[in-house]
Parts: sequence; structure tokens; C-alpha cells
Amino acid sequence: MDLQKIDRKIRESLDDMIEIRRHLHMNPELSFEEEKTPEYIANYLEQLGIEVRRNVGGRGVVGTIRGGKPGKTIAFRADFDALPIQEATDVPYKSTVPGVMHACGHDGHTASLLVFAKVMNEFREELEGNIVLIHQHAEEVNPGGALGMIKDGCLDGVDMVFGAHLQSLMPAGHVYSRDGYLQAAENTIRITVNGKGTHGAEPHNGHDPILAAAHIMTALQSVVSRNADPLGQLVISIGQFHSGSAGNIIPQTAEMEGTMRVFDEELRRLGARRIREIAEFTAQALGCTAEADVEFGYDAVKNHTEGVRLIEDAVGSVYGDGVYQEIDPVMPAEDFAYYLQHRPGAYFFVGAKVEDGRTAYPHHHEKFDFHEPALEMAARTFAGIFFEAQKQN
Amino acid sequence: MDLQKIDRKIRESLDDMIEIRRHLHMNPELSFEEEKTPEYIANYLEQLGIEVRRNVGGRGVVGTIRGGKPGKTIAFRADFDALPIQEATDVPYKSTVPGVMHACGHDGHTASLLVFAKVMNEFREELEGNIVLIHQHAEEVNPGGALGMIKDGCLDGVDMVFGAHLQSLMPAGHVYSRDGYLQAAENTIRITVNGKGTHGAEPHNGHDPILAAAHIMTALQSVVSRNADPLGQLVISIGQFHSGSAGNIIPQTAEMEGTMRVFDEELRRLGARRIREIAEFTAQALGCTAEADVEFGYDAVKNHTEGVRLIEDAVGSVYGDGVYQEIDPVMPAEDFAYYLQHRPGAYFFVGAKVEDGRTAYPHHHEKFDFHEPALEMAARTFAGIFFEAQKQN
Amino acid sequence: MDLQKIDRKIRESLDDMIEIRRHLHMNPELSFEEEKTPEYIANYLEQLGIEVRRNVGGRGVVGTIRGGKPGKTIAFRADFDALPIQEATDVPYKSTVPGVMHACGHDGHTASLLVFAKVMNEFREELEGNIVLIHQHAEEVNPGGALGMIKDGCLDGVDMVFGAHLQSLMPAGHVYSRDGYLQAAENTIRITVNGKGTHGAEPHNGHDPILAAAHIMTALQSVVSRNADPLGQLVISIGQFHSGSAGNIIPQTAEMEGTMRVFDEELRRLGARRIREIAEFTAQALGCTAEADVEFGYDAVKNHTEGVRLIEDAVGSVYGDGVYQEIDPVMPAEDFAYYLQHRPGAYFFVGAKVEDGRTAYPHHHEKFDFHEPALEMAARTFAGIFFEAQKQN
Amino acid sequence: MDLQKIDRKIRESLDDMIEIRRHLHMNPELSFEEEKTPEYIANYLEQLGIEVRRNVGGRGVVGTIRGGKPGKTIAFRADFDALPIQEATDVPYKSTVPGVMHACGHDGHTASLLVFAKVMNEFREELEGNIVLIHQHAEEVNPGGALGMIKDGCLDGVDMVFGAHLQSLMPAGHVYSRDGYLQAAENTIRITVNGKGTHGAEPHNGHDPILAAAHIMTALQSVVSRNADPLGQLVISIGQFHSGSAGNIIPQTAEMEGTMRVFDEELRRLGARRIREIAEFTAQALGCTAEADVEFGYDAVKNHTEGVRLIEDAVGSVYGDGVYQEIDPVMPAEDFAYYLQHRPGAYFFVGAKVEDGRTAYPHHHEKFDFHEPALEMAARTFAGIFFEAQKQN
Repeated sequence: MDLQKIDRKIRESLDDMIEIRRHLHMNPELSFEEEKTPEYIANYLEQLGIEVRRNVGGRGVVGTIRGGKPGKTIAFRADFDALPIQEATDVPYKSTVPGVMHACGHDGHTASLLVFAKVMNEFREELEGNIVLIHQHAEEVNPGGALGMIKDGCLDGVDMVFGAHLQSLMPAGHVYSRDGYLQAAENTIRITVNGKGTHGAEPHNGHDPILAAAHIMTALQSVVSRNADPLGQLVISIGQFHSGSAGNIIPQTAEMEGTMRVFDEELRRLGARRIREIAEFTAQALGCTAEADVEFGYDAVKNHTEGVRLIEDAVGSVYGDGVYQEIDPVMPAEDFAYYLQHRPGAYFFVGAKVEDGRTAYPHHHEKFDFHEPALEMAARTFAGIFFEAQKQN
Repeated sequence: MDLQKIDRKIRESLDDMIEIRRHLHMNPELSFEEEKTPEYIANYLEQLGIEVRRNVGGRGVVGTIRGGKPGKTIAFRADFDALPIQEATDVPYKSTVPGVMHACGHDGHTASLLVFAKVMNEFREELEGNIVLIHQHAEEVNPGGALGMIKDGCLDGVDMVFGAHLQSLMPAGHVYSRDGYLQAAENTIRITVNGKGTHGAEPHNGHDPILAAAHIMTALQSVVSRNADPLGQLVISIGQFHSGSAGNIIPQTAEMEGTMRVFDEELRRLGARRIREIAEFTAQALGCTAEADVEFGYDAVKNHTEGVRLIEDAVGSVYGDGVYQEIDPVMPAEDFAYYLQHRPGAYFFVGAKVEDGRTAYPHHHEKFDFHEPALEMAARTFAGIFFEAQKQN
Repeated sequence: MDLQKIDRKIRESLDDMIEIRRHLHMNPELSFEEEKTPEYIANYLEQLGIEVRRNVGGRGVVGTIRGGKPGKTIAFRADFDALPIQEATDVPYKSTVPGVMHACGHDGHTASLLVFAKVMNEFREELEGNIVLIHQHAEEVNPGGALGMIKDGCLDGVDMVFGAHLQSLMPAGHVYSRDGYLQAAENTIRITVNGKGTHGAEPHNGHDPILAAAHIMTALQSVVSRNADPLGQLVISIGQFHSGSAGNIIPQTAEMEGTMRVFDEELRRLGARRIREIAEFTAQALGCTAEADVEFGYDAVKNHTEGVRLIEDAVGSVYGDGVYQEIDPVMPAEDFAYYLQHRPGAYFFVGAKVEDGRTAYPHHHEKFDFHEPALEMAARTFAGIFFEAQKQN
Repeated sequence: MDLQKIDRKIRESLDDMIEIRRHLHMNPELSFEEEKTPEYIANYLEQLGIEVRRNVGGRGVVGTIRGGKPGKTIAFRADFDALPIQEATDVPYKSTVPGVMHACGHDGHTASLLVFAKVMNEFREELEGNIVLIHQHAEEVNPGGALGMIKDGCLDGVDMVFGAHLQSLMPAGHVYSRDGYLQAAENTIRITVNGKGTHGAEPHNGHDPILAAAHIMTALQSVVSRNADPLGQLVISIGQFHSGSAGNIIPQTAEMEGTMRVFDEELRRLGARRIREIAEFTAQALGCTAEADVEFGYDAVKNHTEGVRLIEDAVGSVYGDGVYQEIDPVMPAEDFAYYLQHRPGAYFFVGAKVEDGRTAYPHHHEKFDFHEPALEMAARTFAGIFFEAQKQN
């Protein structure tokens, strides 16, 4: 069995992928509320004769293709949930669900994996090794679907795990990844400063929570500038600061909410501790108290060296030199992180910037769309990875 | 003609005052929207045969009692507007207008002045000098009714001007005032910081307006601590700070609103200038821009020495020693300030703390009420002032 | 016995005062190191036949003039220490002691009191009441000489106590004072921030004490702007901030020193507590620790109402109307405060701005000098006070 | 000619290196004041018959060994200046010059290069290619000796350039380097805040430079936390903050000095600009002015990919696997940066942590010393590099 035959077949199936993608795009479902989408996926695989488990770890679907010859079991994951965004494009396949939109490309991830499964299944008898298809729900909302699916056994018997994300702002025609940290850990910062309200003309009768929160805001900068190793990467941003309802009344409380992005786990814990210390002690310095909480979201995605090498080799074998590109890590988080905590493997990006003269919008934008031919690159790279993986002993 | 006779008559008229006050309390009207109240006042005075001008400077009412003998013309002012507050008391004379309430005692001011007018008018022929009754609309809302009424001639021919405010937190049985500044000038601070929005994970692509606003907030403290003469009085409080709608997005702008209270005009201008400088330069230091505006509200109420002495003497002549009390200045503003910029005179407070076991609430509180017998003290002090004023040559 | 005779005599003695003042000016001695000065004073008084106690409370000198007739005992105090300043004037009576200078007018205080004593002693037999002459050492240096002299009995038998300070920036020809607080309490702020030194390129290996101290500095402004009653008076200034010896090394500690001036004792304690809280909690917020100490210096000088009235009446009786002027309180501290905590009385200022075309310099300036004829006004006012005091029963 | 023969010879010459190193260690000379050291070096090389240029770019010495056969010209650089530190070790070869010490290992660099030259020169006829020996003065003090030597032609005819630094805190037995940025650019921050002095009790008569500087200090943190790409590396540390000479006097100025370390040139310029903006605008916000200067010191050392590969290959050929180690970049600066801006090449570190039970001290420490056998590794790696370099066409 050779890769070329499969690769050609995938290339011939681009229209299938686009059709599936557009169907899903028109029928998006929110995280942890997916019903039709997993049913659609399960039916698609079952109709191909692929063994399917429904409701894995909640709403996930796992398919298994057992190759005719012995070999490694390689898992590929695609997420399938959508976002609470009202689509503002005018594409013919625009969302039909008000306020819900596939604005992150998960429709494309699913379409690629389904057609990849279809093609691989056609050659099932000739394949060395097995393929596990992880169709995951709820990637967009903490705590995500990955942890539940792993707990429910989706990685049982799996040797390595891979996944791909279409990227609307990265030029098409390339696969991108890196060894080690690829995506940051996400954490939500919530700080409530409790002061004592009073009339604005009588500050001495109260404790000003806006002033305390302002001092906390300025002091928070020191976590990145002083506490983090200058060679590490840490971002702390406060995106919301709300306090008061009248200009002449000093309010009772001030609320801040923000995000912390970080790769290293030790730095993550240090950052969280310092945020709490700064909030609590600074509030006390100003006569107030503060409750500060740093809720840990998804861990950082840390690719395994052997996983990344496999991707690089796979892209080379399918496309030749210059298509695989190493990139710097990126800040958005991804619950693919958890699969890599249980199995070797790697995550990669597929360039999918629109090339037809339209403006390219970022993910989660109401006008988000991607270059549909990139679907083919995701599937072809999966195939390449599967073949490369079998070469290793 | 002697004060005693009039004083006795006023004391006998307390029930009239209470009746009027309760009628007004049940029928409050908002500032600049008063219709029934000025009509009620004008009718009341006209029925007594007092000469009345309606719609003075807008919605004000001016009555004039010409004494039978020559003498000074003394003006007394009472304001009659209510507040946009839903009354939460359970008194029988509770407001019948949803969301509008006499929560500052202006109903009482009006009642006192009307009954004072009634009594003085009875003795009109015997009086030396004239009385001008200034019933002012719209004291609660900047720019206030006073400026318009003055422009429309309410002080024409007036020698001195006086006014009283019932005080729900000051013990009844006393008249309070002071020479010089009695009430502060009020000013509204509005600061908008314009940054550049960006994702929270990419702060370098934006300019963080929350951080700039926080630095402005901390630096604003220096106006009071460093720029104001330590022997002066200045308060700068920010009561609102609002920015952002998502924890992980650095927003475009941050908004602050606050109040500045000050007595001295030079310090007022200095404070306003420093606030603008701090906002604008600090924003620039953080890569943002700021628009800072300090809108001047009412000027400070500055009593004239001769006016305060008259009040002190009047209270002594009516009540004897120990009833007049000198107090520190207070921070709330009052557009009576403008009358004192045109004529000598003074403003005073009448203690009106409830004494019947109920809790005393501050002005502008939904459960505000006052000690009704204090109405008598306002009117009796007016009478005393009128008589003392005629003694001076 | 009448005041006029004495007053005339004092006026005739101005040259004596100037001579004494110039002698002392040329021979200044530092606080707590005075030797020749108290000896000079004691000898002067003894030669007049005045009863003298040496070494009162350390280096103080107390003289007593017992009047021939019964009456009150009134104490007058003059301080006699100089300052560690190298005089930079070119007056003929310039200091002959290198680095030591009467740059605060204590030479004049002493000269006035000595000549006042001489004149009063001449009329001793005719006087009603007694005079206590308190020549105090060490006013310039905390804890000052006053406390020791009081403890050592200088106020025993005294009914009232008075003192005067020549003022080089206040126009001559006037006596200035006020009821209540005249001079502020002085307090020394010392803050040491302990961090952890590290190379400037490795901030994460240390705790930056400069940053912590900077945050303390900015937060300290809130004590005045937020914690003090806007109608109160409080000043907190940091005059020294020192840390580090190399630009690329984060140091171990940062040191701040400052002053707090305040009149009200409760506000003084509040200010001291808030300074400590801000220093300690803010340091902790930044990973450091801080030791903050607010050392209380002289208490505020708080004149007694009856003392000030006596001064006002005395000035009126000696000079007529318009010479006494009421002033705002001033910030410099003075250990005369303690006399007024034990006896009724008051402190006053004598205008002594140079009038001969020279520039007037502030106290403690290397070019300080004063209008010598003002010496006469201090002594004449003392005499007036003594006579007025005897009038009260 | 083969590497093995040379390598053996170098190993046999360790004692020579130690002897030279100790001689230099006992006779240290300060940057830009070196006299005996360059003379010693030049004499040593001349006695070997090596062609020498003295006073290159100031005090540098350049030797040239022309191989008997054609090939590339490879330059090796060793710096030879010492530091203004009083040595506090008790080694027998302790500095004999008070207050001057080889506390950074430049004595060792020189010794290694001299003995390397000696050995290579012995085999001169057999060598393919040429060797340029760059003995550089003044590496410790900005602007450094490198720029002058380059301008004076030390790289003329050179194909590649290499250099080594002994590292007292890195374990011996390894050579360390990395592709791209190895050492940061160094920059000196100097900020002077000009306020207006006044008495501490009268802040409103001045402009407090300590408060302005404190606000600058806190705002400076935002350059790293907000303006720098979170994936970039930037350090800004203020090591000195000095202002004031009396706690109760608000001073005229405040001085800050610090360091900025950065790799990327664009980020360096951004950082410098932001520091100036923050200082200037923040000072203005507080009523002061600021002069802020960021003096650029050495640029970042950026290794060329081919240079690092050569080192890695050379270490492998001399020592085998596992001796070369890739490291993270380090923050100290080095004027070797400039050689790499003119020629391909790379800089590397040689582990030289003491292994004899003594404590290992950091560079620039008064007790600094290093593992002398590491001298051999520097020379052997140079030889390996030379041979590898000739292999490339």
C-alpha cells in the first residue's frame, strides 16, 4: 500500500469535504449543546461501515478503522462545536441558526477528518496499523470536551495522537508547527475589591475601591516585568474594570476581569500566586480587601519532539520541501493540550487564508471564513502522518 | 410694630405650614418641569393679596410685600423642586407621583416661606421696609433656577437676601451658619481615555486604556496631596470607572466620572487644570490619549459677614443665646451662591432631625423625612432677620 | 503703676536689645550644646538682682520677678539655641563660629526678653503680680528643651504663659496670632523597604525594592487625598528617596524619609497608622517587606482662647487698632506647644521683615536676618500682656 | 595534517596556559589603560615568529599565522582587560594591583589563544588556510575595543570569526552556544526629573520630583508588560534612584539609572522610545520635566547559523557527542557582537566552574575564579573549528 494512491484519492475528494463543511456551517451548534452534529458524524462513519462509539465523554464520537495489517494505532482529532456569534458574511452557506456560527473553522476540521476517514477506510485492508477518529465536542468552552473523552477511553490503545487547526490568517499552502509549546495555557483572572462606599465629598468616611483597584492594576504589570524570567513568556491583561454608578458617590466595590497566558506550568503557578498577592496586599494598603481568583483554563499545548518530526517528515513526503514551516508559539489556548499529556503526538496548523480577494478575518470574527481548498491539506497531512508513523518501529 | 407679635403669630401657624408641606410632598415635581407647584404658590400668595410675578427666569415665582413704612427691602428665597427618587417611607403624606420625591426638604422651605409671607402680610401696614419672596424652581439640577431668576430681575430693589435649608441630620432646635464659605463649589469631572483595542494575549498590538486610566486615577490623588495648599480645602473623587466588555479583550476606551468640591475660586481653577494635565499627559505616557473635562457646577456659597451677623442677632432676639451655632463649611453645593454674588446676605441651616424615634436619613435618601416643627424655626428666623435688618441704617 | 511708663521705658531700650542681640548673634551655640549663652543670660539677670535658676531641665535658665503687689504670675518664654548653618551674610555682627548661626531669630527673642525683664524689674515694687522668665535651650532639635524645663518646674506657680517668635517674612509693625491651632505638629517618617538584590538582567531572581518604594510613594498620596477629612489639614512629604549604587544591579533596600505636618491629634494618629499600613502592605504586594516608622516630634501649638484675647487686647492697648492681625495657622512646629498643654496662654508672631532694601530671607536660610526694631514690639507686647492679664480676675 | 596531532599537542600545553594565565592574573590592567598586557602578548607572538600588529584600533594586538597551504582565514578573538575590583580570594596568583582584578576570565581567554597560536604556528607549514589572532583590549567598558579594531582592519581578509568565554557558573566539560541571539544588547537608562524644590510643609509651592519619579518607575513596568511582544525578550531595570538630602525638604531633582537588555533591534528602539515617552510625559503630568536618555551599549551577539554548526561539528570531532550543548540566550552583553556584524561566525561559552570544592562565584565577583583545565577546552575547540572550517568549500 502506498501513500501516493491515498493522496491522490484525497485530492479527488475535495468537493466532498467542501460539501460537508458547508452543511455543518449552515447548521452550527453551541459547545456542550451539540446534538445534530455528532449524530451527523456518527451516521456518516457508520454508513461507511466504520465502527462508531457515540456519546463518548458526553457528546463526542469515536470511530475506529482497523487496518488489515499490524501496525501502530494513530488517533486524529477534529472538534465540531460552534460559537455564539451572529454571522455577518453573505456566503451562500451562511449559518441558518440565529446567533450561532462556525467562526473558528471546526466545520472544516470535521469535514477533513470525515473524508480522510472515508478514503482511508476504502483502503482499510491494505493498511498497516489502525486509525482512531476523535470527533470532539465543546472545544470552545472551558473545561472543554477533551478531558471527558480521554476519561471515557478515546485514547485507549492509541500510540500517537495528532490534530490540525485551520488558520484564517496564515497563508494557505503551508503546514505550521513547532517542537515544544505551540499554544499557551489560558487562565481567567477575577478580582473584586471591596471598599466602603461614601459620598464623593467625604472620602474619609469610606475606603475607595476604585483607587485600590487602580493601584492593583498598575502593580499587576510587575508580574510580567519583574517576576517572570525575561526568557519566559507571560501575558497578563485586564480587559474589564467596572465600578460605580454615579460620579459623586464612592462605590462599595470594583470588579476587574482579565486573562493570563503562559506556557510553562511553574510560571503559571507563580503568575497566579503573584496576582493574588498583589490584589490582596494592595487592597489592604488602601484600606480595602480584595478577593482574587485565577481560574486555570486549558493547559498549554506542548508538542512532543517525535510528533513534530513526524509531521515535518509527512509534509515533506506529501508536498516536498518548504511547505512545512516552523513558527513561534501562539497565545490562544486549545484543549488538544490534554491528549498530548496522555500520548505522544503533536498539533499543527494549516494555512487557510482566503485567496479570492476577500478580506481575511481573524477567528471568532462575525465575518470569519477560510480558504476551502485548505481542507485537502489537512487530510493529506493526516495521511502522510499515518504512513510516516508506521515507518518508525 | 414689634417682632413679638409676629413671632407669636408664626408659632400659631405651624399647622398651616405642615399642611402646605404635606400637600407639596404628595405632589412633587422634577426640576425644570415644575408646573403645579409654582401655580400653587402664586395662587396662595395672590389670594393673600400679595403682588406676584409668575414665570420669573423660567418657572420661578416672586411675591412682594410692600410695608406701610419706609425701610429696607429684604429678600427670602425658598426652592420648590423635587428629585427623581421613588419614596420608600410609609408616612401618610407619601409622594403620589411614582419615581419623584421631595427628598431634600424643598416642600418644607416653600411651606415656611408661604406662611411667613401670610403672617408678614397681615401686618403689612405696620412694617418698615419691604419683603421679596423668591420661590425658586430647579435647585437640584445644574445650571439651576437662581441664575435665570436673578437675570429676570428677582433681586431688583433688594437690599439683602437670605435663605434657609432644613437639615435632616442636624439636631432640631438650632440655626447653623458661618461667615465666609458655607457650601462648596461643585464640579463634574469626566475623563475618557482612548487607547487601541487588541486581544488580551497581544498587548503589544494595542494601547491599554485601562492601565492608562489606572495611572491617571493614582496620579489624580496628587492634586489634593501636592498641588493644593494644605490649609485650603479640596476634594477630588472618582465615582465611576468603566471599561471593557470581555476579560480577554483589551478595550478601546476607559471612562471615568467624578466630582471636585472646593471653596476657593483660584484653587478651583488650579484643580481643574491639574486634572486635565494629569489625564492628558499620563494617557500620552501610556501611549493613549485622554479627553478630560471639568464642568463647573454651582459656585461656592460665601456668606457675607454682615449677613451672618444679622442671622446671629436675629436668632438671639427670637430665641436667646445658644440657639445659633457656628459650623464648619459643608461640601454639598447650592445655587443660593449666585444671590450672594449680587447682594449682601447669608444662607443658614435649620436643624430638622426627626425626634420621634424614627431613623434620621440623609438628604436624597429614599426614606428621607424631617422634623416638621422645624418649619416654624425657619419662618421665625426670617421674621427676626427682617426686623434686625431694619435696625441697621 | 501704669503701662505707659513701662512702655516708654522699653521703647527707650531698643539699643540695649540690639546690642544684646548682636552679641548673641556673633556667638551662636547649637541645641543641647549651649554653654556660654545660658551663662550670659543668667549673669545678665543676676546683675539686675533677679532671682535665677540655672540648668533648669538641662540648660534652661529661669528668672523670677516678684511684683510688690499681689497678682497673677505670668510666664514669658524665649528660646536661645542656634542652627548648624554657615552664615552667608555680610553684616558686621556676623557669626564668629564656623558652621553655626542664629538663623531663626532666637538671639532676638532672648534680647527682647532680657530687656523686658530689666525694665519690668525696675518697676518691680509697683507691679501687681509676678513675672517668670523662661529662657529655653534647644528649641530646634527634637525632643526640645521645653519638656525638660516643664518637668523641672519652670511653670510651677505660673498662671498663664506666653511667647513670641520674630518672623522674617511677615511685615514689621504687626503682631500676628490666632485662636486654636497656630503651628502644626511635626513628625518624621522613615521607611525602609527590604527587597532582594539581583542583577538587573535577572529581576525574577530578586525582589525590586525601588519598585516597591515607588508604589509606596504613589500610594502615600492617598492618606491626604482620601483618609483625611477634607476640612482638616494634613501634609505628608517625602524629601529623601535613596536606593542603589549601580544602574544594572537591583539593590537590596530602598530608604525614604519625610515629614508629616498636622494639627489635630486624631488625624495625626490616623496619618501615622495609614503611612505604616501603606508601606507594609504595599511592600508585601511587591514581594518585599517594609519597616515604617512615624516618629512624633513637637505637638501642635494650640493657643487658648483667653490667651489670644489677652494678646489682642494688649496690642490694642499699646498700639491701638489694626496692629494685631489674625492669621491662618502655619506648618512649622515649635515646642512652645508643651507649655500650652500645662497652662493657659498663647504664642504669637512679631513681624520682622527687613525694611532697609535688603532681600528678606526665610528662617533657616544662610542669609537670614530680621528687622531689629521689631525687638521692641516683642517686649512692648509682653508688657501689655502682663498688664492685661492682671485686669482679669 | 590532521587535527589529532594538534589536539594532542594542545592537551600537552595546559601548563603553559595556566602559567600565562596566572602571570596575567597577577598583573591586571583596566580597560583602555592596558599597557603591559598587549606588550606581553605581542612579545609572546613575535618570539614565536608570528607576524604582529600592535596598537590596532587603540591597544589591540593582531597576530597572523599564514598556513603553508591555501585555505580560509579564520579569526579567533580573546579580550585581555581587567576590572576595577579589589580581589578577595587567597589564591597564590592573586592580583598584585590594588583595586584591579581579572574577575571575568579574560586572563584565561588570552592564555588559551596564545598557546593555541603557539601550537598552530608549530604546524604552520602543514596548515591549510590562515589564522588571525585578535587580542582585544577594553571589552568591559563601553564603547569597547572591538569597534576600533574592526575599523582598523583586524577583520581584513578574514572569512569567519570565532570567540570563546569561560563561564565560572557553567559546569566544566561542555561547550555551550546557540544559533541566533546568544547575548543581549545592553543599554544604559538615565532619567533626571526636574521639579521645583520647596519646604516639605508647603508642597503647593513646588513640584515634587520624587513623586514624579515614582510614577515613572511604576509606569516603566508597562514597557515590558504591554509594549513588548510577549514572545520577545526585554528587561528594564532601574538600579539607582536618588533624590533629596533632608526628609522635610522637597528636592529639586530626582535621578534614576538603569539598564535595558534586549535582543531584537526593533524592540530595542521601541523600548528606548517608550522609556523616554513615559519619563517625559509622566513628569509633565506631575508638573515636572524629565530628561531621559537610553544610551545604547553593545549590540546583541547574534551567532550565524553556519558558525554555530561549525562549533557543534568541531566539538563533536574533538570530544564526541554530548559535549556541545545548546543553551538559552543570556543577558550580559559582549562587544564580540560587532565582529559578527562584519563576518560570519559565532561565539561560544566554555564551562569553567571550579571543581575542587571551592565555591563558584559569578563573574565580576571579588572572589571570582575558574577551573583552569577549561583553558584547554577553549584552545582545543578553536583548533577543531579551524579544521572544520577548512572542510567547507
